[in-house]
Amino acid sequence: MRPTAKQVAEAAGVSVATVSYVFGGRDGRVAPETRQRVLEAAGRLGYAPDQAARSLRRGRTQRVCLVQGSFGGVPTEERLARDLHEMADAQGYSVVTLTVYSRARAVAAADVLRGGIADGALINVSGEHLTPDLLASVVSTGLPVVAIREGEVPPGCDVVRVPEADACAEAVEHLIAQGRRRIAFLAHRHELYTGRPSGRLLGYTRALDRHGVDPARRLIVSGADDRVAAYQAVTELLRSPDRPDAVFAASDRAAISTIWAVRDAGLRVPEDVAVIGVGNIDEGLIANPPLSTVGPLRHDCTDVVRLLFDRLRAEEPPPARELVRTWSFLRRGSA
Amino acid sequence: MRPTAKQVAEAAGVSVATVSYVFGGRDGRVAPETRQRVLEAAGRLGYAPDQAARSLRRGRTQRVCLVQGSFGGVPTEERLARDLHEMADAQGYSVVTLTVYSRARAVAAADVLRGGIADGALINVSGEHLTPDLLASVVSTGLPVVAIREGEVPPGCDVVRVPEADACAEAVEHLIAQGRRRIAFLAHRHELYTGRPSGRLLGYTRALDRHGVDPARRLIVSGADDRVAAYQAVTELLRSPDRPDAVFAASDRAAISTIWAVRDAGLRVPEDVAVIGVGNIDEGLIANPPLSTVGPLRHDCTDVVRLLFDRLRAEEPPPARELVRTWSFLRRGSA
Repeated sequence: MRPTAKQVAEAAGVSVATVSYVFGGRDGRVAPETRQRVLEAAGRLGYAPDQAARSLRRGRTQRVCLVQGSFGGVPTEERLARDLHEMADAQGYSVVTLTVYSRARAVAAADVLRGGIADGALINVSGEHLTPDLLASVVSTGLPVVAIREGEVPPGCDVVRVPEADACAEAVEHLIAQGRRRIAFLAHRHELYTGRPSGRLLGYTRALDRHGVDPARRLIVSGADDRVAAYQAVTELLRSPDRPDAVFAASDRAAISTIWAVRDAGLRVPEDVAVIGVGNIDEGLIANPPLSTVGPLRHDCTDVVRLLFDRLRAEEPPPARELVRTWSFLRRGSA
Repeated sequence: MRPTAKQVAEAAGVSVATVSYVFGGRDGRVAPETRQRVLEAAGRLGYAPDQAARSLRRGRTQRVCLVQGSFGGVPTEERLARDLHEMADAQGYSVVTLTVYSRARAVAAADVLRGGIADGALINVSGEHLTPDLLASVVSTGLPVVAIREGEVPPGCDVVRVPEADACAEAVEHLIAQGRRRIAFLAHRHELYTGRPSGRLLGYTRALDRHGVDPARRLIVSGADDRVAAYQAVTELLRSPDRPDAVFAASDRAAISTIWAVRDAGLRVPEDVAVIGVGNIDEGLIANPPLSTVGPLRHDCTDVVRLLFDRLRAEEPPPARELVRTWSFLRRGSA
């Protein structure tokens, strides 16, 4: 027969209320040592509070959900995850993460969110898997949602905008102004698969169009998702008789691989090939030459995370807010 | 008043049973288009199936939980996550991820797992935050658990062992055999904080001891967690009059930063400073020179993931199994 909270309380020498605080996720009011004692007693006795029953009783999971687009390796996603976890720690929430990299995963994630796995969600998925319809199906359940995305968002959902295209266009125009005439774009796969260009790719095409660069002179290849793929793609490009004199990479990681590939091909950065990345990751500062990039001046994401916790705290759903994160072109040694 | 499954079924033109299959996570038997129709109808109507009520009814969440130790940037963790998600896709499971980087997070993760957030867990947390007691408190609830870790694991839990120390010792002995006399170790923070050396650090100390290297000649610094920290730590070491003639880094990422730092200091790899990393990530092959490393010959983790799904499928809990992943020293250009 299953051990009860009462038996756990006795074993730990605390009140039943304390046990329910600890397992109710509302343990801000429980001393760490006490909490530890309760958890250890529960472990010894094999006490398993029923999450489902608890949720019905409390109607709250005391969890927030992060929906992200990759398994890691994307520094901006890692920073957002870190800031969310730290604020969740401070507010007594757990964090569960869902990773969406396909249509099937997007459908499953929306299903899990609608099902009530968490009290709120921070959604940071690029690409087109998580369609406006799916997002709307989540927001319509009343779940507090903050979405970092371009384009359409359903009413009642906070949105964070990152005007990537403008800053990227500025970077590419800098290359054109330098007299670069063969500017390659290293794209993320999802950028190539979407219908019309958006974000970084849009910035690239817009700048070339604005300067009347013959569309035939465009050079768009995949490789921004992965350091090795980027190195191989650029090595390939540099072998062609009509090799690029500049590479605009949709990620700093790919731009750093580009610097390696240019050097290993016996060419110089930036003299022979100028290189610009996207993201402004710290690693760009130790690259040789230091990486010119497009991105946020500060990486701190607490303002984004705060949107979600404001919604969680609100008695009445607050009006939807829009937060704009400014990006800049940061010129360093590589272009 | 809340919309019902019946209304959703009517709106989607399907049976109520189909709706419950879709929201029950048992939609292997539902055609993708049908599933999509049901989800879109549910979205339009604002239908929110109650996860809690459903779990009580089904007693299953149709989810597996991945517990990992970082926010990404660790290629082996990323590969494990990818393989787990792919098998979960194939088996009709969702995946939720918990990240444990502190004692508080470990306690919270154990709480969430005991609370029944998933039907099973794959635990891949290095460091000492997730103590044997905490792990036991999870396994004792009967939750199927597979743990990748050194040291003690509770009965009833499958364990994956990675004999890192032996392969790392072999790499360091190779450096000693080359006549390297001042071998620095770039450590992960958690390696420095734990009581007695284990894993990679143990391999380093064991090799030096075995060859009677004066403990005073040991040079252990933090930096393996982060590419920039590694670059800065090595740059610092190379400035000292008694600079290292070899660096054994606890991660390939740190080893690659080490190659940059050595070159930027006007020294040669491997002539002046030999470099060996850990992990055998693909990026090591595009480093210049190619990175010597310690790690698995194959990265595929489906054998690890299968342990968990075998447990989930079993009618009776199977006997605990131990899987050993072999590691090797892979000699390339950098040492």
